[in-house]
Amino acid sequence: MRYGVLGTGEVGRSLGGRLLELGHEVTLGSRSADNPVAVEWATAAAGRAHAGTFAQAAAAGEVVVNAVGGTVALDALRAAGAEHLDGKVLVDVSNPLLFEDGQPRLDPVESDSVGERIQRAFPHARVVKTLNTVNCQVMVKPGRVPGEHNVFVCGEDARAKEQVTELLVEFGWPAGRVLDLGGIRAARAVEMYLPLWLSMFGRFGSPDFNIEVRRAV
Amino acid sequence: MRYGVLGTGEVGRSLGGRLLELGHEVTLGSRSADNPVAVEWATAAAGRAHAGTFAQAAAAGEVVVNAVGGTVALDALRAAGAEHLDGKVLVDVSNPLLFEDGQPRLDPVESDSVGERIQRAFPHARVVKTLNTVNCQVMVKPGRVPGEHNVFVCGEDARAKEQVTELLVEFGWPAGRVLDLGGIRAARAVEMYLPLWLSMFGRFGSPDFNIEVRRAV
Repeated sequence: MRYGVLGTGEVGRSLGGRLLELGHEVTLGSRSADNPVAVEWATAAAGRAHAGTFAQAAAAGEVVVNAVGGTVALDALRAAGAEHLDGKVLVDVSNPLLFEDGQPRLDPVESDSVGERIQRAFPHARVVKTLNTVNCQVMVKPGRVPGEHNVFVCGEDARAKEQVTELLVEFGWPAGRVLDLGGIRAARAVEMYLPLWLSMFGRFGSPDFNIEVRRAV
Repeated sequence: MRYGVLGTGEVGRSLGGRLLELGHEVTLGSRSADNPVAVEWATAAAGRAHAGTFAQAAAAGEVVVNAVGGTVALDALRAAGAEHLDGKVLVDVSNPLLFEDGQPRLDPVESDSVGERIQRAFPHARVVKTLNTVNCQVMVKPGRVPGEHNVFVCGEDARAKEQVTELLVEFGWPAGRVLDLGGIRAARAVEMYLPLWLSMFGRFGSPDFNIEVRRAV
């Protein structure tokens, strides 16, 4: 499969690297075509790895992954261009995290979410929110955390969620541990989990953790 | 131990009933001394169970539990009176949930929390936020959910958190599953988990679930 990954930060490079490892073709997109991080990444990976603009990455991908921060996601996707997103599965793994006076904040929060904003701005993209509840290393190698634990998906398009679930299984998530929370509105729920994640991160001093949902049956 | 439980709803009655079962003395407090639910509860339980006003319950308790909703917690605690809270462990299990146009909302959210508001309003109470991440039946009988799973505590007073942890162990929580998230500011994190809890509740159709935190060691 051809993936366009928007964002050359740790999240984009982790996802891109793992997709390559799994045999996919990846274009890592950034604001400019000559972004040194992306070019170096593509050169080091060679073959199936490419660097380009947001628009080039989105155009190249059969599936597009938003791996830029939630607060700049809409800008990156506008630069990518609706014409390169329409009809495609658009995986949003971002959190709306910003720092204000040194304190982490979410924007938007509660009455809206990045996932919903993206779906509203690109009504013909098939947005699936997922993976934002774990660190980028755990996203692509869930085995870093022992035992079975959960990841969430939500979005309006059932077939898109199935396709993303298949990708999660490729990453190593057990299919039975992918919890479908329904429509894209549930992006609010998974984005608002971030403060608890940050609190636990502060407590543990390591991002290699996740939650397993336990229920009575 | 003598407990004052503020609130005669399902949460207050669950906590009160379980505390009685464990051999404690409980005064269930409400806005008026002749609240029929509280009086019936005290009559049915007899002996170590009492009903009274918020002030009577708080005065009677060596430990006070806020089991009214987060959006009315400060009103209930003001009615209870600072003089009946000062120096005491004040356990806050509430969530700032309200419904606006039929949609669940949190107030406060993100830049503040009920836990922090209570601690600010009653600086001499030893506030510990806990248990708000599970349904009230699971709060007092964690064995309703199979396996080991987690509950959080946060607050400014280390000794108060220890005392609350002992209470959680009485309820049936394994001591090793009580995660201390630090100061009362972490109340924001556990209160903002509510939308994810609500999403999962909607998905499962039962409140008998909880999360286990898994981490690499």
